[in-house]
Amino acid sequence: MSSAWLLPEHIADVLPSQARRIEELRRALLDMARGYGFELVMPPLLEHLDSLLSGTGRELDLKTFKLVDQLSGRTLGLRADTTPQVARIDAHLLNRRGVTRLAYCGPVLHTRPERLHATREPLQFGAEIYGHAGLEAELEVIELALDGLRSAGIERPVLDLGDARVVRAVLADSSLDAGRLDELVSALAHKDGGAMAALTAEFPPETRQALSTLLRLYGGSDVLQAARTHLPARAPITAALDDLEWLASHVRRTHPQVRVGFDLADMSGYAYYSGVRFALYGEGASDSLVRGGRYDEVGAVFGRKRPAVGFSLDLKSLVDLATPHPPRVAIRAPWGEDAALRAAVRQLREQGETVVCVLPGHEHEGQEFDCDRELACIDGRWALRAL
Amino acid sequence: MSSAWLLPEHIADVLPSQARRIEELRRALLDMARGYGFELVMPPLLEHLDSLLSGTGRELDLKTFKLVDQLSGRTLGLRADTTPQVARIDAHLLNRRGVTRLAYCGPVLHTRPERLHATREPLQFGAEIYGHAGLEAELEVIELALDGLRSAGIERPVLDLGDARVVRAVLADSSLDAGRLDELVSALAHKDGGAMAALTAEFPPETRQALSTLLRLYGGSDVLQAARTHLPARAPITAALDDLEWLASHVRRTHPQVRVGFDLADMSGYAYYSGVRFALYGEGASDSLVRGGRYDEVGAVFGRKRPAVGFSLDLKSLVDLATPHPPRVAIRAPWGEDAALRAAVRQLREQGETVVCVLPGHEHEGQEFDCDRELACIDGRWALRAL
Repeated sequence: MSSAWLLPEHIADVLPSQARRIEELRRALLDMARGYGFELVMPPLLEHLDSLLSGTGRELDLKTFKLVDQLSGRTLGLRADTTPQVARIDAHLLNRRGVTRLAYCGPVLHTRPERLHATREPLQFGAEIYGHAGLEAELEVIELALDGLRSAGIERPVLDLGDARVVRAVLADSSLDAGRLDELVSALAHKDGGAMAALTAEFPPETRQALSTLLRLYGGSDVLQAARTHLPARAPITAALDDLEWLASHVRRTHPQVRVGFDLADMSGYAYYSGVRFALYGEGASDSLVRGGRYDEVGAVFGRKRPAVGFSLDLKSLVDLATPHPPRVAIRAPWGEDAALRAAVRQLREQGETVVCVLPGHEHEGQEFDCDRELACIDGRWALRAL
Repeated sequence: MSSAWLLPEHIADVLPSQARRIEELRRALLDMARGYGFELVMPPLLEHLDSLLSGTGRELDLKTFKLVDQLSGRTLGLRADTTPQVARIDAHLLNRRGVTRLAYCGPVLHTRPERLHATREPLQFGAEIYGHAGLEAELEVIELALDGLRSAGIERPVLDLGDARVVRAVLADSSLDAGRLDELVSALAHKDGGAMAALTAEFPPETRQALSTLLRLYGGSDVLQAARTHLPARAPITAALDDLEWLASHVRRTHPQVRVGFDLADMSGYAYYSGVRFALYGEGASDSLVRGGRYDEVGAVFGRKRPAVGFSLDLKSLVDLATPHPPRVAIRAPWGEDAALRAAVRQLREQGETVVCVLPGHEHEGQEFDCDRELACIDGRWALRAL
């Protein structure tokens, strides 16, 4: 019987070598975030559905597992994303006036996989800055994300920049229900001109023209220039293009190894983005590792509209691209009640060594750990010798 | 609006100071387990209900949230305990012949709280040894648990020992349905002689006599002697008492600071225990911090009956008793694009310091971190100075 037979689709156990690597990356990312001054929070997996989905849109709703609370009879949701919870913590529990930086790392659950081979139980790490409306916040979270990828051995990622204000401004004159908007967003993300033409047949000609221009607005630096020339000169669009130019030039200067690109049509992801959006890709990879951006509106439903910028990534996906883990080495020791042996074992463990005590009767079994040394009694003293 | 208003009962956010302490304890416990040669695994939160509850009894079933998988239409469970999953991993995925040591750390969810103030989302850490039938395995996991408590600052815990074979042997001649057995187990755990007398009115007189003796068999070392004198001299009971005596004497010798007690009537916890059981308490605390024991049968439903011993604890409960966290200190730095400033910030962060860059316009806000130094440009060079 294989794990695939036993477990639900898109759900898997993480076995020791992978688990160890995930744990190392988890610590590296949390330490890095702490180095920037992000404070760790741990929101719960379960919340009342209405509080969990407040202001987040249909996509997150469909992704969220629902169940009934025996204690209250109310419907609970299993979080499919942590960002709305962190916004709630910023708004209600901390309720600070100044800049607040928060980080988190924990599982989320999805009713359906995001992609063909995606897990339905990502291990989400993320970081958010509340209380600063300027682009310095975007720059800081992008730099933290780049540091995180570097700690996983991804040295030359691709940064894809976009801005939710562009598509929104283009569609400002058109009324669309949620379902049709989802289809349009998907057509824009997949550069599907046919689907888009069908969806927008009733739109004003300027809007159709702008949308079809958007389909071509992805690639290198020339995209911003082309957008200034061909998109309507509306204030939100100009502001978005200025912001993207500022960010791109700063990232290029401080991180010359990062390739910066643009995609002005991509609106995929949750509905809560309100400004700059970004994604990071491994070299040659087609699925993004990191997604983030500005979502100033996300705390509004909790009664407190604060500027907010952040990103998240899935550690289980990241570990697949991360540089592999060096082999583990350990020390083999006999089992025994001798106080000197016990003291020697304890001391080695306190030094960070793995010491496997071979339980009685198992002396001739192979060890899972690669034991390169053993603790042996030599001339009446416990000492290490090579194996 | 308080968190209590927003969140379901017995569900809470973990805010920064507590979250940081939990993360530190989590790392200390995982590192300690690794030092003993335990390998980390990460079973999923969601499984098919039948695989999750195989052979675990009614108590775990009642505790488990159920939901429907949209992909398969089958019923899934959210794990309420990780041990059965780890047994599945040992039996199926690793499928090793020798001794296997596995550790895990992750959330579990309970439909109802275990106690009056218990969380319904404990963060469960645990460690298990598969493949060794001897008491050395019990001793090793107890020592690991004691090391874990010490890392939380709990230096003088109370170890409570029991054995599932005792009550089972006493009841061997009596047939009880699952519901009545649960009530009897509860009466024994709470030393409720009245409830027990009512439940066992139809039992043979020897069994009633033995059960009422069991109610008194808790306390110090004299318990084992009293049990040998007053309980029926059946083979499983004698074996259990010998094992408890061996374990107690070993723990007393290697950990003289631990107070060792016995409770031969306590069968609470899951139905899967098959031999020695133990619990660890903080000094003066009435709720156990750690529960563990031998459960050789737990893998049987997966087609592979292996000796198994382990324990688990809830990091959220442990942190409440743990020694408090020293105040955080950080370095305050201005925001700026100067390459020398950026290099200085990066270098300090790589040294493990927290450097909070004050975003433009927020210079006069208080900092959440206690900044005891600042990075300042002195005579054209970036240097630290005290605040």
